[in-house]
Amino acid sequence: MSYPASLSLMFPSSDMDKITIEKNLFCLPWTQTILGTHFEGKVNFMALAWLTRVNYSPPMLGICVNKQHASHAAIVSTKEFSVNVPTVDMVEITDYAGLVSGRRVDKSKLFEVFYGELKSAPMIRECPVTIECRLTETVSLPTNSFFISEIVAVYTEETFLTDGKPDVKKINPILLTMPDNRFWSVGYCVGKAWSAGSGLRERKKEHGQEE
Amino acid sequence: MSYPASLSLMFPSSDMDKITIEKNLFCLPWTQTILGTHFEGKVNFMALAWLTRVNYSPPMLGICVNKQHASHAAIVSTKEFSVNVPTVDMVEITDYAGLVSGRRVDKSKLFEVFYGELKSAPMIRECPVTIECRLTETVSLPTNSFFISEIVAVYTEETFLTDGKPDVKKINPILLTMPDNRFWSVGYCVGKAWSAGSGLRERKKEHGQEE
Repeated sequence: MSYPASLSLMFPSSDMDKITIEKNLFCLPWTQTILGTHFEGKVNFMALAWLTRVNYSPPMLGICVNKQHASHAAIVSTKEFSVNVPTVDMVEITDYAGLVSGRRVDKSKLFEVFYGELKSAPMIRECPVTIECRLTETVSLPTNSFFISEIVAVYTEETFLTDGKPDVKKINPILLTMPDNRFWSVGYCVGKAWSAGSGLRERKKEHGQEE
Repeated sequence: MSYPASLSLMFPSSDMDKITIEKNLFCLPWTQTILGTHFEGKVNFMALAWLTRVNYSPPMLGICVNKQHASHAAIVSTKEFSVNVPTVDMVEITDYAGLVSGRRVDKSKLFEVFYGELKSAPMIRECPVTIECRLTETVSLPTNSFFISEIVAVYTEETFLTDGKPDVKKINPILLTMPDNRFWSVGYCVGKAWSAGSGLRERKKEHGQEE
C-alpha cells in the first residue's frame, strides 16, 4: 500500500517546517499516579505515569513498569496492585515515592493505607481516586513490562463528585511531562467531547461531504 | 502474602469516607491525540486518547483501539500508524474525527498530510508534535486491541521547542476526561519531577529513615 503521489507533491520539502527530534523527546502530558503493591510482604509505593485504559468492557487498565523496580517484582509475585491518583497538593510526596527504591527504603508509612477486595493492593487514603487492579496478562518488552489488569473496584469520596461522577477540577490531579520533567495541573475546559465537532459535522452534511 | 492486621484496624469502616463507584467512572485526564492510518488505501484519522509509553529503550508507544473501528482494520493490515498531538485550537476538528467513521466518511482531506519514513503513517501538518510508529505486537483484549509499536521518528517544529525540547505550553495539547467527556488544557507548572521530593528525602535522611 502506498500513498498518492499528489500528497508528497503538495508538500515539497522546501515548504516544510518539520524537524525530527530524538525519539524520547516528546512531552505528552501523562497523568501522574502512585502505584501501590506488596513487595516482599511489605506495603510499597512508586511514582507511575505510563498507564492507559486498554479495554472498555470489562474495564481494564495497563501500566508500564521498569523491570528493575521493586514494584515490578511485587506485581509478578502477587498479581495485584493499586493505582492511586494524587492531587497537586501531594507533589512533594509523590515525587519522593519515585526518588527512592523500595529495595532500600521502607515506604510503607508514607501514606495512610486502606484495602478493598484485594489483599495485595494497598490504596492511599489521601488520594481522591484509587483503583484496585488484578493482573490478567504480562507483556514483556526490552526494558519494561506492560501489566494488563482488570479493574476490580474504583474508590473515591462524595466530595470529589459532580452529578455522580468524579470531577477532575475537584480531584485536581498532577500531570507529568518528560524529559523536561515538569509537573502540571489541569487547566480550563476547552470543549465537550463527542459534541465539539457536531457543528462541523452539520456543515459537512450540508455540503454533501457526509451521507 | 497478606497485609498486616494492624492496617485494617487502623482504618475501621466507620471512619472511612471512601465509596466505590462504577468501574468506568474514573476521570483521569488522558492526552487527546489523532490516530493516522491508511484504511483500504486511503488516509484515515480517528480521535485517540488511550495510549501510553510502554518501553523506555528503545522508545515504544502502545495504543488502544476498539476492534470495530476502521483504524483497527487499517493497523492490522498495514502494521503502521501515526500519533498526532493537536492543540486546543483544534478541538472542533479533533472531536469531528472521533464522531464519524472512516467506513462511511472520507476523512482523508481533513488535514494537510505529510510523510516521514513509513508509507502508511500519514501525519498531520497542523499538529505541533507527530509520532511515526511501526507495529511490533498486538494484544487482543475483549473489546479492544492494544497495539504495541516502536517509535520510528518524532516530528515537531523549532517554534515548539524550549532548550531543544518540545515545550508543553507551546504545544498546548488537549486533555480528555471520561465519562464526563470534557476537553481540557494543561494548567500551570506545579513542580519539578525527580526534584520536588528532594527536600523530603533530605529530611528523612536526617531522621535516619533512609540509609
